[in-house]
Amino acid sequence: MPTAAQLALELEGRLDGEGTAEITSVAGLREAGPNDLSFLNNPKYSGLLAKTAAGAVLVSETWQGEAHTTLIRVKNPDAAFAKATLKFRPPPVEHAPGIHPTALIHAEALLGPNAHIGAHVVIEKGAEIGENAVILPGVFIGEEVTIGNDVLLHVGAVLREHVILGDRVIVHNHAVIGSDGFGYSVDEKGVRTKVPQVGTVRIGNDVEVGAHVCVDRARFGETRIGNGVKIDNLVQIAHNVVVGDHAVLVSQVGISGSTVVGPHAILAGQVGVAGHLTIGEHAVVGAQGGVTKDVAPKTYVWGTPATPFEKYSKSLAQVNRLPKLQKKVAELEAKLTALEAKLGKGPRDT
Amino acid sequence: MPTAAQLALELEGRLDGEGTAEITSVAGLREAGPNDLSFLNNPKYSGLLAKTAAGAVLVSETWQGEAHTTLIRVKNPDAAFAKATLKFRPPPVEHAPGIHPTALIHAEALLGPNAHIGAHVVIEKGAEIGENAVILPGVFIGEEVTIGNDVLLHVGAVLREHVILGDRVIVHNHAVIGSDGFGYSVDEKGVRTKVPQVGTVRIGNDVEVGAHVCVDRARFGETRIGNGVKIDNLVQIAHNVVVGDHAVLVSQVGISGSTVVGPHAILAGQVGVAGHLTIGEHAVVGAQGGVTKDVAPKTYVWGTPATPFEKYSKSLAQVNRLPKLQKKVAELEAKLTALEAKLGKGPRDT
Amino acid sequence: MPTAAQLALELEGRLDGEGTAEITSVAGLREAGPNDLSFLNNPKYSGLLAKTAAGAVLVSETWQGEAHTTLIRVKNPDAAFAKATLKFRPPPVEHAPGIHPTALIHAEALLGPNAHIGAHVVIEKGAEIGENAVILPGVFIGEEVTIGNDVLLHVGAVLREHVILGDRVIVHNHAVIGSDGFGYSVDEKGVRTKVPQVGTVRIGNDVEVGAHVCVDRARFGETRIGNGVKIDNLVQIAHNVVVGDHAVLVSQVGISGSTVVGPHAILAGQVGVAGHLTIGEHAVVGAQGGVTKDVAPKTYVWGTPATPFEKYSKSLAQVNRLPKLQKKVAELEAKLTALEAKLGKGPRDT
Repeated sequence: MPTAAQLALELEGRLDGEGTAEITSVAGLREAGPNDLSFLNNPKYSGLLAKTAAGAVLVSETWQGEAHTTLIRVKNPDAAFAKATLKFRPPPVEHAPGIHPTALIHAEALLGPNAHIGAHVVIEKGAEIGENAVILPGVFIGEEVTIGNDVLLHVGAVLREHVILGDRVIVHNHAVIGSDGFGYSVDEKGVRTKVPQVGTVRIGNDVEVGAHVCVDRARFGETRIGNGVKIDNLVQIAHNVVVGDHAVLVSQVGISGSTVVGPHAILAGQVGVAGHLTIGEHAVVGAQGGVTKDVAPKTYVWGTPATPFEKYSKSLAQVNRLPKLQKKVAELEAKLTALEAKLGKGPRDT
Repeated sequence: MPTAAQLALELEGRLDGEGTAEITSVAGLREAGPNDLSFLNNPKYSGLLAKTAAGAVLVSETWQGEAHTTLIRVKNPDAAFAKATLKFRPPPVEHAPGIHPTALIHAEALLGPNAHIGAHVVIEKGAEIGENAVILPGVFIGEEVTIGNDVLLHVGAVLREHVILGDRVIVHNHAVIGSDGFGYSVDEKGVRTKVPQVGTVRIGNDVEVGAHVCVDRARFGETRIGNGVKIDNLVQIAHNVVVGDHAVLVSQVGISGSTVVGPHAILAGQVGVAGHLTIGEHAVVGAQGGVTKDVAPKTYVWGTPATPFEKYSKSLAQVNRLPKLQKKVAELEAKLTALEAKLGKGPRDT
Repeated sequence: MPTAAQLALELEGRLDGEGTAEITSVAGLREAGPNDLSFLNNPKYSGLLAKTAAGAVLVSETWQGEAHTTLIRVKNPDAAFAKATLKFRPPPVEHAPGIHPTALIHAEALLGPNAHIGAHVVIEKGAEIGENAVILPGVFIGEEVTIGNDVLLHVGAVLREHVILGDRVIVHNHAVIGSDGFGYSVDEKGVRTKVPQVGTVRIGNDVEVGAHVCVDRARFGETRIGNGVKIDNLVQIAHNVVVGDHAVLVSQVGISGSTVVGPHAILAGQVGVAGHLTIGEHAVVGAQGGVTKDVAPKTYVWGTPATPFEKYSKSLAQVNRLPKLQKKVAELEAKLTALEAKLGKGPRDT
């Protein structure tokens, strides 16, 4: 295991303090002990540096403040720390090429070279899978599914028929891609009949799909997820939604049918979006926001109904000031009554 | 593939324009090309008809507006389009009767005729399943489960012991029916002990249960889902809840224990309902609403705490007018001060 | 089957009324019939006692009110009823020790005595499992997972590599423990690169994890769930979160990265918590609350942004009074105008 000084060299940093501590692991500033490397990325937490027991701490080249431990100054503490975590991580699980004997692969499915296919995997007729796929136990791949190269499908992921995945896509546990959209016709008695959902889902390259995510297949045509989109756990994406390149959908977001989320937009946790709307590129919706109208590009909205952040904050602040306003109005009323009384007895009446 | 004119005949519509375009697929107005059939259902989107490249568009018999493409006028454009999507859809996945050799069916389970049982399915002791069941790979059916005719259980669905399902029920991927209710007794130290959840779940006919839905079994007795209920993805239904016939639960709704949702009620996306409440028949709760009191039949509520829509909208509007109100009060104060000053120097003081 | 009188003896209660009714089942006050035992725990529902058709009803020793049925007076009606439900429940599913022939257990995994391992279970290299484990069909246990004694893992649960579980833990269907945290670095073009998530998850003793819960593995170090924590269905717990002993997370809660939830805290349904916050011990967040700042111990907050309950209720009440305030201000304005007019024609101007 390296010393702090050796680590500083490896991470192309500048040692600031003693370099003899042996580093065997990484930890947050609060939890770190004398053999841990830690890091300070957000200056907001500078106070922790005076208290941490870490053996060494990665800080930015220009950071100034109180510290009682060895510092390693680097350009980007976050990136350097990510590099260090890989050095000290437990050996990653290996998925050597090969097909588990319990996997069921249809004779008319096509499998690229170097695939790792785990236990109890089911791959149906007409599926086509690119190179270097890692498909872990219990994954289901439906008929005519098309999958690019270098994908990683975690235990229990379900890709229903005709779904299309690009290259380097990661699908986490139990995510479901291509479930039926939620569509019914209603008769005069309020009885619903299922509208066939005969479209599919197309997912671009470099997409990550979280655990328990649902991406519904389109009523017709495609539900589309662009390149580089990152989707956190338990997100719901309804039929015919379009998510632009590099958008980010945080945990428990729900997007209703046919809505378009622009490239680079960010929907924070538990956001809900009504159907048939457009969220502009680079727009941000704050956590739990409920979007009921289109959102302009590059705007930041919050609240339900979602409102530009400044306006929303102003409303919130004003609601908080309501007790004062009530009091002020009561005072005015009292003064006015006094004045009326005074005036009532005034010269015109004498 | 048919021409627009042939399609108009098939859909019992009236051709309005040239009928020669060959139609090979369906698409939305925005995405459609010269060989696509599209449709206009909501007049809100009439503007798109002047711009669409669709080969033909289904519109209502009475629609008036600008269009540069062939129209097919029909009574119900939505229904006609649904019919057309089936015509052009890829061939649906077929599930011929038969039992996959890897399925594990207990000797004391009863299976109706024509069942399709997929790979790795597990059916436990005492389960009874009706005719024409389609049970896809990895489904688990617990002890003494009772299932009606013509059900479709998608990959990974879990029906725990004693659960009861009606006819023509569809359960989507990974939905869990009959998980334990969330119930504990608490001692004086705040330590919780599990209260046994020994009831079950009863689901009626023609119900659709979305992907990743959880329906908890009752503490005792039954959690009940009526006939014709439609449940979207990622919905949570707690123990002893009763959902009336033909109710609709949109994605990510959560209903707490022992609450009764009336027939034909609609809970929009991400709605939360507290426990032991009654939501009346035909009531509607707007998206993200938080229901803390009973909701009267046929009322529309929104917000947290959920409030009749008109009252809630008025409050919202008034919150938005708060800056104006603040300004008005400041003006009144200034005027009053001026008046006091004027009056102070007035006749009574001279 | 016992009579009401015999049941009163068994439950150490005092019979109040006739004891001859034969009791064969338990039910709620609304649903109960002449052979059902029911119970009244919350005096709020006392009105139901005059109407119930139950054969006998458990009430507290001191309860007073109108009832037309046999009462059994006990110290704790809730606990006595829980005991009775066990008496009348259908026989529970038995899981005898044994390993299903389709289970795949790595030669280098260690299994304690008396384990029940169901069909299609996968246990990877280096996993260690304590005594009396019940591991139901389709469960996946990754490499180097460590599991205590007496755990119950329901169908489809996934424990990813290196995860640590204590004793007497229950994991419900399809819950995922150890999925990747949601972490990326972003370049100047807004393109995200996955930050390796190399930590793990440690879960204490006596924890219950609901269906479809996601507990993400730490970026480094551990995501930690304390002893006695109860987690309802569809909850999201992000990387490096710490949940203190005996905390309660109700359905559909979402907790962002690195947040600390204190011991005995309760987060009600659909609550969202931002990252890097601390929620104090015994604090309570009301349903759908959105926590954006630290919450002090033993405080009750509600709303988005979450606010101490009294303050929040006051704001809500004041928003509801806004129409009145508007009216009042309009009245003051009218009076003031009248006064100005009067004064304008007053002595100073004459």
